[in-house]
Amino acid sequence: MNVMLTSVGRRAYMVKYFKEVLGNNGKVFVCNSDDKSIAFKYADEKVISPLIYDSNYIPFLLEYCKENRIDIVISLFDIDLLMLAKHKKQFEEIGTKVIVSDPSIVEVCNDKWKTYKFLTDNDFHAPMSFLDMNEVIEKISEGKLSYPIVVKPRYGCGSISVAIAYDEEDLRYLTKKANEDIANSYLKYESSVTTDKVIYQECLKGQEYGADIINDLTGKTQNVIVRKKLAMRSGETDIAQLVDEQNIKETLVRLGKTTKHIANMDCDIFMVNGIPYILEMNARFGGGYPFSHMGGCNLPKAIVEWAKGKTVDKDTISARTGITGYKEIYITEI
Amino acid sequence: MNVMLTSVGRRAYMVKYFKEVLGNNGKVFVCNSDDKSIAFKYADEKVISPLIYDSNYIPFLLEYCKENRIDIVISLFDIDLLMLAKHKKQFEEIGTKVIVSDPSIVEVCNDKWKTYKFLTDNDFHAPMSFLDMNEVIEKISEGKLSYPIVVKPRYGCGSISVAIAYDEEDLRYLTKKANEDIANSYLKYESSVTTDKVIYQECLKGQEYGADIINDLTGKTQNVIVRKKLAMRSGETDIAQLVDEQNIKETLVRLGKTTKHIANMDCDIFMVNGIPYILEMNARFGGGYPFSHMGGCNLPKAIVEWAKGKTVDKDTISARTGITGYKEIYITEI
Repeated sequence: MNVMLTSVGRRAYMVKYFKEVLGNNGKVFVCNSDDKSIAFKYADEKVISPLIYDSNYIPFLLEYCKENRIDIVISLFDIDLLMLAKHKKQFEEIGTKVIVSDPSIVEVCNDKWKTYKFLTDNDFHAPMSFLDMNEVIEKISEGKLSYPIVVKPRYGCGSISVAIAYDEEDLRYLTKKANEDIANSYLKYESSVTTDKVIYQECLKGQEYGADIINDLTGKTQNVIVRKKLAMRSGETDIAQLVDEQNIKETLVRLGKTTKHIANMDCDIFMVNGIPYILEMNARFGGGYPFSHMGGCNLPKAIVEWAKGKTVDKDTISARTGITGYKEIYITEI
Repeated sequence: MNVMLTSVGRRAYMVKYFKEVLGNNGKVFVCNSDDKSIAFKYADEKVISPLIYDSNYIPFLLEYCKENRIDIVISLFDIDLLMLAKHKKQFEEIGTKVIVSDPSIVEVCNDKWKTYKFLTDNDFHAPMSFLDMNEVIEKISEGKLSYPIVVKPRYGCGSISVAIAYDEEDLRYLTKKANEDIANSYLKYESSVTTDKVIYQECLKGQEYGADIINDLTGKTQNVIVRKKLAMRSGETDIAQLVDEQNIKETLVRLGKTTKHIANMDCDIFMVNGIPYILEMNARFGGGYPFSHMGGCNLPKAIVEWAKGKTVDKDTISARTGITGYKEIYITEI
């Protein structure tokens, strides 16, 4: 079985996980729009693809998958997910299974306004969100909302242009800045469908958690692994502990059953007065997955087994709790 | 020989380098103001110290060094460097050698205004810098300076509150923000000596380089290792290539002879039209040192040898050029 990871970026560990699963029974291919990727060092085969928004992107991938008999494609980047989700059938026709959720679910994850609507429509707690700055100012003057307010790109990735407004001057300035940042980055592509490119959210105070909601390839929820974030830096988790928080777990099992997503859903949660608020959803392996893997969860293995039509026991997608993982940095010669 | 690394933070690799050098002939001790440090996992001995600005910090360290027969202390954090530099003699008296530069040189590095003055006074190129926002606005209106302008804390560390102003509105807003960020972070301590807490610099355009200027323990310049930064993320270098840039090397050899710093000086350089401009200096091992180490430079070994009164051959502090290093992330269970 051959596996290809697209938009692989810096995630060398994903290549290693899949190589370990495949052993001598298949190759790991990686694909990225530039070669500035440490993942290229570890993959069996690598290729530089056109940019995701290039009209040649999907034809290029189809051709490459056919030529190299790729059985499974997994993307690690939000914008790429949507593109692949929309062309899933074409890959199916050449015998390549794209492990990606329905386009409607990817859109719910990529568009933070749709995330908010989806969550509240389905009775999950989420931070109060707005698209209209004047509505925010009005709500605050009425005492129905208060500073600080989080200002961020509606179709944001990572911590690009995420900022906190403490007063109206901040709010106006950060809105202008966010719009400029969007116009000057790849965020402009997804944002182009709307004029409301910035989203405003109440700033929750509480303990932050991350989670992997694991569904099988038919979209049935199989497990949820929760990590308590103990230290963050530049929007990424430096230290996290795997925990057994029943309240969060039950909420996310219900979320997984609602999204019916495929394979992994990476999630951010804030616990506020004992209630789990869902902040973000990413329909893919997220930066926090290595913590679950450290605890013994092997979702890459489960995906390969499921793709072969085999059943996967719960142990394969479970992690020990109580253990803490630290991010460590190495410089590797290429 | 026992070595202690203070303010060790996340730099587990420094512990590993020193453990490799010492082998069975000494221990590596680490010290940090909290235990959220992956370095604690690898050190032989670890201790949580008072905060650097706590009046008990130096007495605590002196006591600890005496008790544990620490031969060498090396700090990895700017504010800590200054504190240790000022108390170097007291450590000397109990038989502990602090590998740190003269307080006046640490101050030149920590205060970006002093950095600018020091560099230009000694005929090095540096980005035009200002402490007075109105002077910046005036210079721009006179056509002697132009946007974008970099706005950052004068006593800044890392990328905290570093931003770019594209117009006067930005300039005023970012000045306000930087002052607020300084007041709400540990930057307030060093900044407390002045009301000019923010510095403005012209925004250079060119290829960015990093370097280690290696002096021996008497302050004599021994070598310079230069790396070309190929990819950055959140102010840190993700990918860099070790290069043989004579122009930069010669400039930095002269800089090392001018600062007469002790051991390592981490440097940021911009090449603008073939001229090396010096942006920043840190009188310590910086985040880029692992690239030099990858190339074969072993400054930890040289420091230990020098401290023993031995000579160190040039090979020990040299690195192969032409090779490229990538930052790689691991999650390690603690």
